[in-house]
Amino acid sequence: MTEIQIAQSVKPKHIRDVAETLGISEAQLQYYGNDKAKLPLQLIDEHKIKESHLILVTAITPTPPGEGKTTTSIGLVDALNLLDKKATVVLREPSLGPVFGIKGGAAGGGWSQVIPMVDINLHFTGDFHAIEKANNLLSALIENNIQSKSRNLGIDPRTVIWKRCMDMNDRGLRNIIAALGGKAGGVPRETGFNITAASEIMAILCMASDLEDLKERCGNIYVADTWEGKPVYAKDLNAEGAMAVVLKDAIKPNLVQTLEGNPAIIHGGPFANIAQGTNSIVATKMGMSLSDYTITEAGFGSDLGAEKFLNIKCRAAGISPKAIVVVATIRALKYHGGKSLKEITQEDVPALIKGLPNLDGHIASLKSFGIPIVVSINAFSSDTQAEIQIIEDHCELLGIPVALSYGWEKGGEGCLDLAEKVLVAVQSCAQKFHSTYNLADSVQHKLKMICQTIYGADAVVLSDLAKTQLRKYEAMGYGQLPICMAKTEKSFSDDQKRLGRPEHFNIHIREFEIATGAGFIIPIAGNMLRMPGLPATPAAERITIDKDGVIEGLF
Amino acid sequence: MTEIQIAQSVKPKHIRDVAETLGISEAQLQYYGNDKAKLPLQLIDEHKIKESHLILVTAITPTPPGEGKTTTSIGLVDALNLLDKKATVVLREPSLGPVFGIKGGAAGGGWSQVIPMVDINLHFTGDFHAIEKANNLLSALIENNIQSKSRNLGIDPRTVIWKRCMDMNDRGLRNIIAALGGKAGGVPRETGFNITAASEIMAILCMASDLEDLKERCGNIYVADTWEGKPVYAKDLNAEGAMAVVLKDAIKPNLVQTLEGNPAIIHGGPFANIAQGTNSIVATKMGMSLSDYTITEAGFGSDLGAEKFLNIKCRAAGISPKAIVVVATIRALKYHGGKSLKEITQEDVPALIKGLPNLDGHIASLKSFGIPIVVSINAFSSDTQAEIQIIEDHCELLGIPVALSYGWEKGGEGCLDLAEKVLVAVQSCAQKFHSTYNLADSVQHKLKMICQTIYGADAVVLSDLAKTQLRKYEAMGYGQLPICMAKTEKSFSDDQKRLGRPEHFNIHIREFEIATGAGFIIPIAGNMLRMPGLPATPAAERITIDKDGVIEGLF
Repeated sequence: MTEIQIAQSVKPKHIRDVAETLGISEAQLQYYGNDKAKLPLQLIDEHKIKESHLILVTAITPTPPGEGKTTTSIGLVDALNLLDKKATVVLREPSLGPVFGIKGGAAGGGWSQVIPMVDINLHFTGDFHAIEKANNLLSALIENNIQSKSRNLGIDPRTVIWKRCMDMNDRGLRNIIAALGGKAGGVPRETGFNITAASEIMAILCMASDLEDLKERCGNIYVADTWEGKPVYAKDLNAEGAMAVVLKDAIKPNLVQTLEGNPAIIHGGPFANIAQGTNSIVATKMGMSLSDYTITEAGFGSDLGAEKFLNIKCRAAGISPKAIVVVATIRALKYHGGKSLKEITQEDVPALIKGLPNLDGHIASLKSFGIPIVVSINAFSSDTQAEIQIIEDHCELLGIPVALSYGWEKGGEGCLDLAEKVLVAVQSCAQKFHSTYNLADSVQHKLKMICQTIYGADAVVLSDLAKTQLRKYEAMGYGQLPICMAKTEKSFSDDQKRLGRPEHFNIHIREFEIATGAGFIIPIAGNMLRMPGLPATPAAERITIDKDGVIEGLF
Repeated sequence: MTEIQIAQSVKPKHIRDVAETLGISEAQLQYYGNDKAKLPLQLIDEHKIKESHLILVTAITPTPPGEGKTTTSIGLVDALNLLDKKATVVLREPSLGPVFGIKGGAAGGGWSQVIPMVDINLHFTGDFHAIEKANNLLSALIENNIQSKSRNLGIDPRTVIWKRCMDMNDRGLRNIIAALGGKAGGVPRETGFNITAASEIMAILCMASDLEDLKERCGNIYVADTWEGKPVYAKDLNAEGAMAVVLKDAIKPNLVQTLEGNPAIIHGGPFANIAQGTNSIVATKMGMSLSDYTITEAGFGSDLGAEKFLNIKCRAAGISPKAIVVVATIRALKYHGGKSLKEITQEDVPALIKGLPNLDGHIASLKSFGIPIVVSINAFSSDTQAEIQIIEDHCELLGIPVALSYGWEKGGEGCLDLAEKVLVAVQSCAQKFHSTYNLADSVQHKLKMICQTIYGADAVVLSDLAKTQLRKYEAMGYGQLPICMAKTEKSFSDDQKRLGRPEHFNIHIREFEIATGAGFIIPIAGNMLRMPGLPATPAAERITIDKDGVIEGLF
């Protein structure tokens, strides 16, 4: 059975019945069909959050086949519910653009999926669309201010850093010259589009504590300089009120369900390389307000996802996980051990052993946070007993509990061992996480702490451009912001070819960006693509729908 | 009270109760909140449509203050319901972009509104967003095909006529150079964005009979030529299946309610100057399937809206109105009589008399269709008894019933006279409408028929470019398509300064476009702007929302 066939083989509960298990009445729901609903922020309860157990699911360094964080998160929540625990999974919203490229859905897999998976992967409840409109409304207001004689703020068109966005893999929009066509068309300038998930508005939505905070953050977005070199913010364009109106529903978390009918909250999906890469603070807090156990995931490997989840999101939200699950696959570890994609489905104990240091690196990084760790091996039919034994022995040696998880094949039933080990870990957690740096530290020091403690780098090297930018941003008063690293997800280092657990390397910061609304300073190591293209044969060509609404080729 | 205060002063019915009055069960509804729902196309019933009465609301040549077609349509449906008739109003969806420009909402006015008016004017049920994605997915596939070596169709990048779209007033996107940035960015070329309402996808959605037809029409979109000069269609890119998937919910009409709790179906909003300018065929048919009386409107004056409504939409759908309401205001007639906007709120009988020929022109045009006409004077407090008398006497002389309508001030109660006159007209209608031309006629003849019969022009003059294009499109086999005129809405002529009822003029066709998916040939008279800009002081600057979700400055 394909993912979509599995997803469509299950008759979903009415969403009001899922809500009822969380103690939410129908009157509090804002329906989107019978299987999706928005939840009012009023349901967030800081008192309950304090008593709730948060569990983070992260992974080793990702490889092309993917490790299965979302699948594991969903399997784990189903397993916890089988064990009669009140548990909710809180995930990121997938982006529509890549659905038409190479990628399948981003709503779990096999028997560990969230449904309705087609809707979740397409328009869902319109959050991405609203983010796109808010982003592009700000662009239109900038363009209009440059054009308008009477209300001109003196924006130097060459300095506009705010880009438009679109949730579509469209390489043709990466770099454009806009505002052509003579006087009525505006002042021509170079600009471009990001994919919507890479918009600062997405990052803001995921950091905001409520609509008021969201509005204020929108106003704080730094968009350009004047001809005199003074910064221009969105609030100088009186943009934040209208942007908040556009986002008034998007800020509300979305309730759906797992295939086993357990509650899933899906909200926000910022890029994990350029932004914080985890779902919204309000969604995580919503899960914690409604459940005893909240499972959530953070994008890419723990060096990017978990580090930002903890140092940025958890710090800002005042929450702390009680356990961290590291997802690994035997296939991926063989890949880190030097094997090609074709070879990793064959038994290869030496390659597996050679790949284990990648897992060790992630465990070492995560230990610095002081939160109990559980390793989850996302099982594949190609895994052999000898390989499984190696990894179990290795984890025993490290003193880290390890579970074999069969979420894809068996749903919650396949993740009971993991669930039990996670419950033990949660019980053993006696403290809040240790952050990697203090906000009051200098940017250079904060950077060094991340690169050394988390990546295992020797040092951080700033380009001349980066140094100049850093001086500027510090002078503007942004030195106290947390660091949101932009680095390849394919290696602990900034060189995507260095698999495993690289040693003796420096992290090279090419430039800095700043997200003054979301509240990050973003050191950029290498080239970060913020508008993907389509592959030679796009998935879109295979996708169709018949007159009865049956979709083919989507996943 | 402002529009928004009036709209928010009424407690809406739950949408399932509105649906129930139409005989629709809750199980058939796809909720979007408690006050909006999508209706399945299966509710369309061709047998009931034959017995249902369709009423078209059109207007005199529009003037800056607006005539109030939507307000009149809503007042009329409320009045018919007061008279115990089962009546539904079917309207166009407003565009989000202009909300941030100069314009207020497009959901009626005063006590004749549809609610929830804020949502309807913002994201509503996401139809515009879906249309935008389908449009831009096709663009991404075109860009990708030009870029891809292996699957290249040989598209000449200079010939790509398909533009991207965005529902935002952003003049900076009218004319752009895309695909810059070197090899990875694509093949640079001149292109641009239309506002989403001007996308051919919107026109297609409004013409499609079902999802299958929608998919086929998407495949038929003509996007470019090859280097050898052969036409390339969306289906050559295998785009139509994925586009239909993106549009699978957008094709379903949306049910909301009037302030008086009567059913309103809102669906589709194509431009009335460049496209057909009326709501979707499926929405109109839905209204007719569920009600005895269906009131609908068509954009701009009758020369554009009603002509296209009848010759394009009604012909394609096999439906025919039983009465046509022409909305006029005394203010607007004084404007046509030569007065400025400042002067029209003062009594001016000579100016009114001088402006009456505009009304006469519309009545004369509409008479050619053979359907009973009722004039509705949308009343303003500045209208004087003397002025009202003039217009009543004039209509009596013409033999056309006239009603004074107070929908803005009094809702349905204010439109009872109109409703009674419309009921008499419907009773008297014994035939289907006469079309202005036969589809089998030559394009030149069809054009001549519209310009002479409807506009009162002497002749049609084609530019050399238009002649060349027409030969090409006829050679491609598109000569049988209906005509979708693109002309200024501000005059019967192609010169927007010629108010009233101009005489002795020719219509100059600058060029032709073709919408092979929607199924129109589009003669363009003059400059049609398809991407508006923001005004010097955009409405966005006044719009805000507080922490309790109370919106200010929106309307």
